[in-house]
Amino acid sequence: MYKLIVQEGHARRGEFTTPHGTVQTPVFMNVGTQGAIKGALSAKDLHEIGCQIELSNTYHLHVRPGDALIKRLGGLHRFMNWDGPILTDSGGFQIFSLAQLRKITEEGVRFNSHVDGRHIFMGPEESMRIQANLGSDIAMAFDECIKIPSPHAYVSSSCDRTYRWLARCKQALAEYNREDDAVNPGQMLFGINQGAVFHDLRIDHMKRIAELDLPGYAIGGLAVGETRQEMYDTIEAVEAYMPKDKPRYLMGVGTPGNIIEGVYRGVDFFDCVMPARNGRHGHLFTWSGIINIKNEKYEDDERPVDPECDCPVCSSYSRAYLRHLFKAEEMLAMRLAVGHNLYFYNNLMKRIRDSLEQDCFAQFRHDFSEILDKRV
Amino acid sequence: MYKLIVQEGHARRGEFTTPHGTVQTPVFMNVGTQGAIKGALSAKDLHEIGCQIELSNTYHLHVRPGDALIKRLGGLHRFMNWDGPILTDSGGFQIFSLAQLRKITEEGVRFNSHVDGRHIFMGPEESMRIQANLGSDIAMAFDECIKIPSPHAYVSSSCDRTYRWLARCKQALAEYNREDDAVNPGQMLFGINQGAVFHDLRIDHMKRIAELDLPGYAIGGLAVGETRQEMYDTIEAVEAYMPKDKPRYLMGVGTPGNIIEGVYRGVDFFDCVMPARNGRHGHLFTWSGIINIKNEKYEDDERPVDPECDCPVCSSYSRAYLRHLFKAEEMLAMRLAVGHNLYFYNNLMKRIRDSLEQDCFAQFRHDFSEILDKRV
Repeated sequence: MYKLIVQEGHARRGEFTTPHGTVQTPVFMNVGTQGAIKGALSAKDLHEIGCQIELSNTYHLHVRPGDALIKRLGGLHRFMNWDGPILTDSGGFQIFSLAQLRKITEEGVRFNSHVDGRHIFMGPEESMRIQANLGSDIAMAFDECIKIPSPHAYVSSSCDRTYRWLARCKQALAEYNREDDAVNPGQMLFGINQGAVFHDLRIDHMKRIAELDLPGYAIGGLAVGETRQEMYDTIEAVEAYMPKDKPRYLMGVGTPGNIIEGVYRGVDFFDCVMPARNGRHGHLFTWSGIINIKNEKYEDDERPVDPECDCPVCSSYSRAYLRHLFKAEEMLAMRLAVGHNLYFYNNLMKRIRDSLEQDCFAQFRHDFSEILDKRV
Repeated sequence: MYKLIVQEGHARRGEFTTPHGTVQTPVFMNVGTQGAIKGALSAKDLHEIGCQIELSNTYHLHVRPGDALIKRLGGLHRFMNWDGPILTDSGGFQIFSLAQLRKITEEGVRFNSHVDGRHIFMGPEESMRIQANLGSDIAMAFDECIKIPSPHAYVSSSCDRTYRWLARCKQALAEYNREDDAVNPGQMLFGINQGAVFHDLRIDHMKRIAELDLPGYAIGGLAVGETRQEMYDTIEAVEAYMPKDKPRYLMGVGTPGNIIEGVYRGVDFFDCVMPARNGRHGHLFTWSGIINIKNEKYEDDERPVDPECDCPVCSSYSRAYLRHLFKAEEMLAMRLAVGHNLYFYNNLMKRIRDSLEQDCFAQFRHDFSEILDKRV
């Protein structure tokens, strides 16, 4: 259930209630692909760094350790010891990017696992079954992620098929939710808008999936090679046709600047591997831009990573110590860097929400939309 | 200052006061070689897992990031954000095992750094200077670690030199402690007994170093290739000549069984990389023996690693989840495994202390000395 609290232009401050708690939006989902956050962060740390909702990957968990196993162990919440909301993706994106693809048909997709090469078939029903077994709070629709650029005709027919797949997802999940041993009977389905950067296809597809009256809608298939401006234009084109009483999720996006611009264009949910991946390489987000903690200039810098940050890392450790950990290849380097970056993202969302409540998001956007993405 | 609280046979329950707090003995020192615990554990975790005293390595910290840098940043306690007691080794062991050795003279040792190959000279004064810069609570004497087996004549002359080095260590550290900018003016020096497995040399050396009236004494040069029984016999031979009013530290030892047998023979301090190293390989200590969490039989095992353990890992995660993390090569696997193993070691020491207080250490030794080292 989405509740709009306040709006400034297209930007929305709201909240969304799931079976495992209410999420304040706009929100960033912290990515724990295989049921664990990269960089040795535990579920307990997620509370400390301000995570409201965790995202895990259906494809990865299906391949290993297997969703049937996770169901036997009580579902993903219990397995990873996280009692807050969880969203699972559909597996589609990974199948189209990671696995060795075999064949797409009306039924679904045949592919080989990237772990052991074994043949797997996944269609809408299979994706919903896996997500039902995981017991996430939000299941994502099974869709085709189309390369950009792709021909208009191909994108058009793919959107048609993704629409038919969505109808099957809705029916399948409703059925699985009614089963006696359902892990999370309140599990919700979000539809995914596709159409590459063709506004006509995006809008047509959005209108059709909106009619299915799902609890939320995502914009998928962006941040896959198009320009920043093409991405923003596509969001603007489709946003007008997204239900106002449902949350909007921009999948796989992005930099702090991308997120601010996404909120500006009416988006409520975000996710991205960037804070964890950048952290593992020593690239740390600060309110003055991105620093590379491995630089020699931080060798005896006693200041915290970001003097404006009150995260557990900045409260306890110096830049010099973090740099040493990276140079010495200590695993703790990863944990502290990823912890800081995820806190930064979660805190960014909090500051966005605060600025919306105080009716000064325009100023916030002006102050931070560019600077946060810059390397300093 | 060492205070003996109660004794059962040779086994001693005591406490030792350092500038950063009092340690209850027998104690296990948790190893943070480069100023960080392996497996992404932070100083904050050390409190949670019952660590009383941390051990860092002089050689490693001298090579990287450099002890002068750490001194400028306020010393090792502040650098790594650990406010409890710290012991630093002398660098001797690493020079003789890791570095490319150049030459030993009366003055000290010339060698090449294992990181960048640069020439380094370290003698008693250099080792004390580095440890003074780090500001640990206990500095270890600079000694030669002799291979086992080595000829009696070589060991004898090496012990003589190590004795002369110890006298120089004592003088140098006293001098550095008096300097105005001393990081930790209360830093104490422990002497190290050597002599391989030659009881006559061990005893003679021990008698001579005891005369220097240092705050504590270690038995070094064991667990380097001799048999278990040779190690125990050597401890028994030398222990009779160790001052009763000073703590005794058995360096680099060992398995849970080794530790119980060490306590039985009058040892108070232990350290070993084993719990962290084993943990990183998925070998986890339990009160029923050592399990390999990667075994298939744990695939859907809902129980904690050790049902008898109340560590943060066993309180929150199943064997199945840990096994998944190892299989999926998630860094969190290391953190949870190392955290559990270190807690196990710290808890082992607590149970040893409790049994000494309750005058039932003999029973404890009978029950656990063998079983804890067994793979099950």
